[in-house]
Amino acid sequence: MKLTKKILLEESMMPTKWYNIVADMENKPLPLLNPKSQKPVTAEDLEIIFPKAIAEQELSTERWIDIPEEVYNIYKIYRPTPLVRASGLEKALDTPAKIYFKNESVSPVGSHKLNTAVPQAYYNAKEGVKHLTTETGAGQWGSSLSIAGAHFGLDVKVFMVKNSYYAKPYRQLVMKTYGGEVFASPSEFTQCGRDILAKDPECGGSLGIAISEAVEVALNQPNTKYALGSVLNHVILHQTIIGLEAEKQMEIVGDFPDKIIACFGGGSNMAGITFPFLRHKLSGEKKDLQIIAAEPAACPKLSCGEFKYDFGDSSGLTPMIPMYTLGHNFQPSQIHAAGLRYHGAGQLVSQLRKDGFIDAVSIEQQECFDAGILFSRAEGIIPAPESTHAIATVIREALKAKEAGKEEVILFNLSGHGLLDMKSYEQFI
Amino acid sequence: MKLTKKILLEESMMPTKWYNIVADMENKPLPLLNPKSQKPVTAEDLEIIFPKAIAEQELSTERWIDIPEEVYNIYKIYRPTPLVRASGLEKALDTPAKIYFKNESVSPVGSHKLNTAVPQAYYNAKEGVKHLTTETGAGQWGSSLSIAGAHFGLDVKVFMVKNSYYAKPYRQLVMKTYGGEVFASPSEFTQCGRDILAKDPECGGSLGIAISEAVEVALNQPNTKYALGSVLNHVILHQTIIGLEAEKQMEIVGDFPDKIIACFGGGSNMAGITFPFLRHKLSGEKKDLQIIAAEPAACPKLSCGEFKYDFGDSSGLTPMIPMYTLGHNFQPSQIHAAGLRYHGAGQLVSQLRKDGFIDAVSIEQQECFDAGILFSRAEGIIPAPESTHAIATVIREALKAKEAGKEEVILFNLSGHGLLDMKSYEQFI
Repeated sequence: MKLTKKILLEESMMPTKWYNIVADMENKPLPLLNPKSQKPVTAEDLEIIFPKAIAEQELSTERWIDIPEEVYNIYKIYRPTPLVRASGLEKALDTPAKIYFKNESVSPVGSHKLNTAVPQAYYNAKEGVKHLTTETGAGQWGSSLSIAGAHFGLDVKVFMVKNSYYAKPYRQLVMKTYGGEVFASPSEFTQCGRDILAKDPECGGSLGIAISEAVEVALNQPNTKYALGSVLNHVILHQTIIGLEAEKQMEIVGDFPDKIIACFGGGSNMAGITFPFLRHKLSGEKKDLQIIAAEPAACPKLSCGEFKYDFGDSSGLTPMIPMYTLGHNFQPSQIHAAGLRYHGAGQLVSQLRKDGFIDAVSIEQQECFDAGILFSRAEGIIPAPESTHAIATVIREALKAKEAGKEEVILFNLSGHGLLDMKSYEQFI
Repeated sequence: MKLTKKILLEESMMPTKWYNIVADMENKPLPLLNPKSQKPVTAEDLEIIFPKAIAEQELSTERWIDIPEEVYNIYKIYRPTPLVRASGLEKALDTPAKIYFKNESVSPVGSHKLNTAVPQAYYNAKEGVKHLTTETGAGQWGSSLSIAGAHFGLDVKVFMVKNSYYAKPYRQLVMKTYGGEVFASPSEFTQCGRDILAKDPECGGSLGIAISEAVEVALNQPNTKYALGSVLNHVILHQTIIGLEAEKQMEIVGDFPDKIIACFGGGSNMAGITFPFLRHKLSGEKKDLQIIAAEPAACPKLSCGEFKYDFGDSSGLTPMIPMYTLGHNFQPSQIHAAGLRYHGAGQLVSQLRKDGFIDAVSIEQQECFDAGILFSRAEGIIPAPESTHAIATVIREALKAKEAGKEEVILFNLSGHGLLDMKSYEQFI
């Protein structure tokens, strides 16, 4: 029998609802806190920077939330994404493990970020917002929000971590082609940026700083809201489309994963692929399912961080989040996987980690790029530097399975391709 | 009823044979000529630089040629590619035309070039060849042959036009990540390169020079053959997988194109999508089908060239090809669509053009990039500079249809995405 390489879903089979894991958590996450009052954040608090619908989703405890038709129609540009049997990688490793990956790199921006950019732009436009602001590290998220904004007639300002801005010139051109406006952060455009530059004119920026700048503009400019590409519950909610599709696709081939692996930055791609499967572990039905978050050794919040209330940004503008964190002023070293250089882990993932449902590993850069190169040659797709963390972890697990002679089923998320990050590969080839 | 955005084919529906249009041409193309003897080229002549199977395909008159299983299995990494309803573009143009595009940009290298790189690497490996050489301009072809080589254990040497080598650093990194060896051409590696550098150390290179270097190595190094990415019949044969899939996909939605449009460089993507449909025009069954090749105004061989015997390269090493040509020494200006800067049109396309089956238009760069930006925002995908020529032509035709109030069916080939060519967009945004 010939191997089916790609397990496709027809558009008509695309899930019509997102999955909210809060509904199934025995220990609900601690609330976000308003940093001034120290009281739980309310929808009204959130509506200062987010539209009503997003604020509601952030606090929702509903299990299933409808995907609006307008969002669904744009998802169809690239979704459902293929589930792929990594037969080339299996062969290269000579492992008995069956390796599958969900290929989110087929999105036109090259990553999973569009899954939440589209609904966020939609809800903002629907409520009459005209301008969006956001931050971006590697540029995946900024590109996604730029095209999502174009779809719904919003203009988008992106604060891009300065080091990335100069290291990744193609990324800013992508954003600009889509109609986005891009600032190297810290910038002279905001008070917060100016303050930082006054102290340190050479500051290369960080995600925390870029968030502060984007939030400042959203607070001070009329008809403007802020959009975040990871960490928060509504972002994770939108990303569950990944796992919901993967679940249907695994059913088609009659497999259920023993292990699900994803790289970990703010948590959205990891939660997106794992939460729909994790619900079967929460229910007790799939007790042995193991979830592994793959972190860079340079920024290991789940592996080595502390669980406590901390800010989501570096200047303390956001609500306090109960989470695993390295401290909101933590400055990770300049690894290539810019999308993983974030100090905290978000509310849902952190609670689930605390309760033992999520494992974490942290990996050095060299091992990740070695894995990325091996994968490129075996499967043809050059992975994003972020995704190489997942692949390195998959390789470790597949080799363990080989040693144990176990035909394990491993699923991972290929969160994006690396074509716009080729400079990162230079020192490793 | 909800619109189906992407018309997918299951892997099991992928065509198992390529289509050779020669079998259905009433006027067969004139033969290639050996430049020394002025006699028709034989398989033996071709086997000096190509493997036997490729030489045979180049001269074959069989209508259908089996796709080897090993090739088929690698095609499955990205094929069948989606046929997409360009509903966003239709809306942006407010046209009654129904616009479809075949999305070849989903290949891991970002273009259709892999369709022929895979079989070429396969046939070489099968005949015991260990090393392949080739030239590349923009880098799409060099990337494709590098990963195809990796799949079949061949090492690949790519001579990349020196100007492109430095202007497109991401492209050479893609090739190197796949394991290819890349030389800035002219290089010190070949006699021909050394001769040129001795005369002009600053020489920026050309496709003609790069071909000469690649052929020199193939001729002088043991166990080494040469591979070409366009123009020749065997390349076009492999590319017919595009149109054969599209034909099945159009059947699924119950449409047949009135017009098929593709950009035109060496002809392989244009022939690839159109020939399977064109056979129904050759048979008299679909008399009204119109095929339009979209050329850059800087290199309009089909629109303004002369039909005659000419060399395929600038230094006169290749066989003489009966074709529309601007002259083998023609130097097109430095437009961004490097893949369309070729002086000739190939044997099959030229004969069909001469016999009135193919129309051609030529378009200025500004109109193409305007079209590319409009398409990016409407459909989310940033097209390759080459592909924008097809899109600009589609827009012209869709606006004509609007004026005439005609619900025309237009199909075009999105030959590649532009993510590795973002520098090209810089001056237009």
